[in-house]
Amino acid sequence: MQRMMIALLIAYAAGIVMGKLLLPVLHKLKFGQNIYELAPEAHKKKQGTPTMGGLVIAAAAIVATLVMNDYSGPLAANRAIAILIMALGNLCIGFADDMTKIRRGKNGGLTPKQKMFFQTILALAFSVYCYMHELVGSVIDVPFLHVKWDLGILYIPIMMFIIVGTTNSANLLDGLDGLLTSVSLVDFATLAVLAGVMGMTDIGVGCAALCGACMAFLAYNAYPAKMFMGDTGSMFIGGAVVAAAMLMGEPLILVLIAFWMLMSSLSVMIQVTYFKHTGGKRIFKMSPIHHHFELCGMHETKIVSMYMMTTIVLCVITVLGVL
Amino acid sequence: MQRMMIALLIAYAAGIVMGKLLLPVLHKLKFGQNIYELAPEAHKKKQGTPTMGGLVIAAAAIVATLVMNDYSGPLAANRAIAILIMALGNLCIGFADDMTKIRRGKNGGLTPKQKMFFQTILALAFSVYCYMHELVGSVIDVPFLHVKWDLGILYIPIMMFIIVGTTNSANLLDGLDGLLTSVSLVDFATLAVLAGVMGMTDIGVGCAALCGACMAFLAYNAYPAKMFMGDTGSMFIGGAVVAAAMLMGEPLILVLIAFWMLMSSLSVMIQVTYFKHTGGKRIFKMSPIHHHFELCGMHETKIVSMYMMTTIVLCVITVLGVL
Repeated sequence: MQRMMIALLIAYAAGIVMGKLLLPVLHKLKFGQNIYELAPEAHKKKQGTPTMGGLVIAAAAIVATLVMNDYSGPLAANRAIAILIMALGNLCIGFADDMTKIRRGKNGGLTPKQKMFFQTILALAFSVYCYMHELVGSVIDVPFLHVKWDLGILYIPIMMFIIVGTTNSANLLDGLDGLLTSVSLVDFATLAVLAGVMGMTDIGVGCAALCGACMAFLAYNAYPAKMFMGDTGSMFIGGAVVAAAMLMGEPLILVLIAFWMLMSSLSVMIQVTYFKHTGGKRIFKMSPIHHHFELCGMHETKIVSMYMMTTIVLCVITVLGVL
Repeated sequence: MQRMMIALLIAYAAGIVMGKLLLPVLHKLKFGQNIYELAPEAHKKKQGTPTMGGLVIAAAAIVATLVMNDYSGPLAANRAIAILIMALGNLCIGFADDMTKIRRGKNGGLTPKQKMFFQTILALAFSVYCYMHELVGSVIDVPFLHVKWDLGILYIPIMMFIIVGTTNSANLLDGLDGLLTSVSLVDFATLAVLAGVMGMTDIGVGCAALCGACMAFLAYNAYPAKMFMGDTGSMFIGGAVVAAAMLMGEPLILVLIAFWMLMSSLSVMIQVTYFKHTGGKRIFKMSPIHHHFELCGMHETKIVSMYMMTTIVLCVITVLGVL
C-alpha cells in the first residue's frame, strides 16, 4: 500500500511540472481545440484552448509507475506495464485523431473506419493477452453474488466489445471542463484500493499513479480549463480503466465505476435511434447526456461535481460488492 | 469497513433528500446570507443565497451514524457519539452566530467575547472527556517518527488551543462555493480510512457518515452555490474534524489534513500583524488567503479544485506518516 501511495505522490508532482512545461509548447504549436460546431453555444469561448493535455497524464503516470513498479517477476507478466501499454496504444489512436482535427481545422478526426480498425486490433491483442495471462485467464468475478464465471473462449470477443465500448465511452464523456478527469481520478483510486486489498500491488501501483496524474491534470483542466486532454487523453484513460479492471478479473465493475462513461454512450445511442424512428424528434436536448443537463440550465461545474460525487457513491458500492 | 461504507451511503442519500426539503424552507424564512461588505466584488451577486445549509450536513451525518453505530460498549465511551456531540456543540455556536447575522441584517454575528466564551467551555469539556477516556488519555502519537508523546495534564490546555484554533479556522476557510465542503469530505474520508485500519470502527463510522454528508451537500453547495453552510456548518465541520483526530490520538495530523484551515487563520494573522506594523501595508491582496488567490485572477472553481487536490496529497502523506 505504501508503494501505491508514493506512486500517487510522484505522479502528482510529475504531472504538475509537466503541465507547466507543456502548456506554453502547445500554445506555440497552436494545438488549439477546434470546438465541435454542434456543441452548446457556451462552448464557443473555449475555441483555441490547447488540447492534447492527455500527454501530461500519460507522462506523469508512466514516470511514477516505472519508478515504483515491482520488477521481481517476468516483465511480460507485469500487470502495471500491461496497463500502460494498453493505455498507450489507445493514446496513439487518440493522438492521430487529435492531429487530424488540428490539421483540417475541423472537428473531424480519423475516419470512423480507420479508428475502428485500430481499436479492434488493440482490443483483440489485449484480450488475448489477458486470456493467456497466468493470473487472469477466462474466469471473471461477478460482484455481489461472489461467484466466478468462466467465459471460456468467449472471453475474447466479449472483452473486445467491452474494451472498444469503454474507450469510446470515455472519449464521449470528455465534454466539459474537468469532467472526465474528475470522474476517472475517483475510478483509479477505487481500482487502486481494490487491487491493494486483493494483494495485486502491481495493478495498485499503476492505478495509484494514474490517479495522481489525473489529480495533477485537474490543476490545468478544472473549470475554466487552460488545457484539454483531447482524444489523446480520453482514449488513454479509457484504455487504462478497462485494462485495470480486466487484469483484476473484475470487468463487470465497469458498469458501476464507469457508469457515466456508459451513460454517455447510451444517451448518444438512444438519441440517434429515437431521432431516426420518430423522423426527427429528440429525447434529450443534446447528447451525450452532460450536454442535456447543461442545456437544462445546470452550470458546467455543477454537472462535474454531480458526476464526481455519484461516481464516489457507485465506487463505494463497488467496493462493497467486490470485497 | 463495510459498516463504514454503508454509513457513507446512508448519509449521502439522507443529505440529498434533506437538502431538497430544507432549501425551500430557508428561502421562505428569508435566511439569506448577507455577504460580508469587504468581500471581493464578485461575491456581491451571492447576496440572498440561503445559509444554514450546515443543518443538512449535521442531520445527514447524525442519521447515518445513529443507524450504523456499534452500541455494544457503554454509550458514554462511544467515540462516534462523542464526535457528534462535540460537533453539535459547535454547531449551536455557529447557529447563534448565523441567527444574529440574519436578524441584524449585517454580517456581524455574536460578539467575539460571547463566541469565545462558549468555545472555551466546549473545548474544556471535550479535552477533559478525551483525557479521561479509557482509549484516549493524554498520550498522543507523533506521525512519521512513530513515537508516543505523553502530554500529562498539559494535554488539556494544549488540546483546548487546538480545538478553538481548528473550529475558527474551518469557519474562515468557508469563503468560496464548495470550498470547505470539498476539503472536508477528503478529510473525513482520510480519518475514516485511518480509523478503519487502526480498528477504531466507531470513529470510522462517524467519519464515513460525515464524508457522505459533505458529498451530498456539495450537490447544493458547489459553484454556483444554491445554499451556503453558514457558521452553522463550518463550526460543525471544524468540531467534527478536531474531535475525530483527538479521539484517534492523532491531533498532530491536523497540521496536514487541516492544512488549508490552518493557512486561512495564519494568513489572517499575518495580514493583520503586517498591517499594524507597517502602518497600513498589506502582504496579501485580501485574507483569508483564498480571497488573495481570487484577486490574483484565479477563478473560484479553480481555487476549490486546487485546495481539494492538494488536500488529497497531504492526506496521502498523512496516511503514510501514521501507518
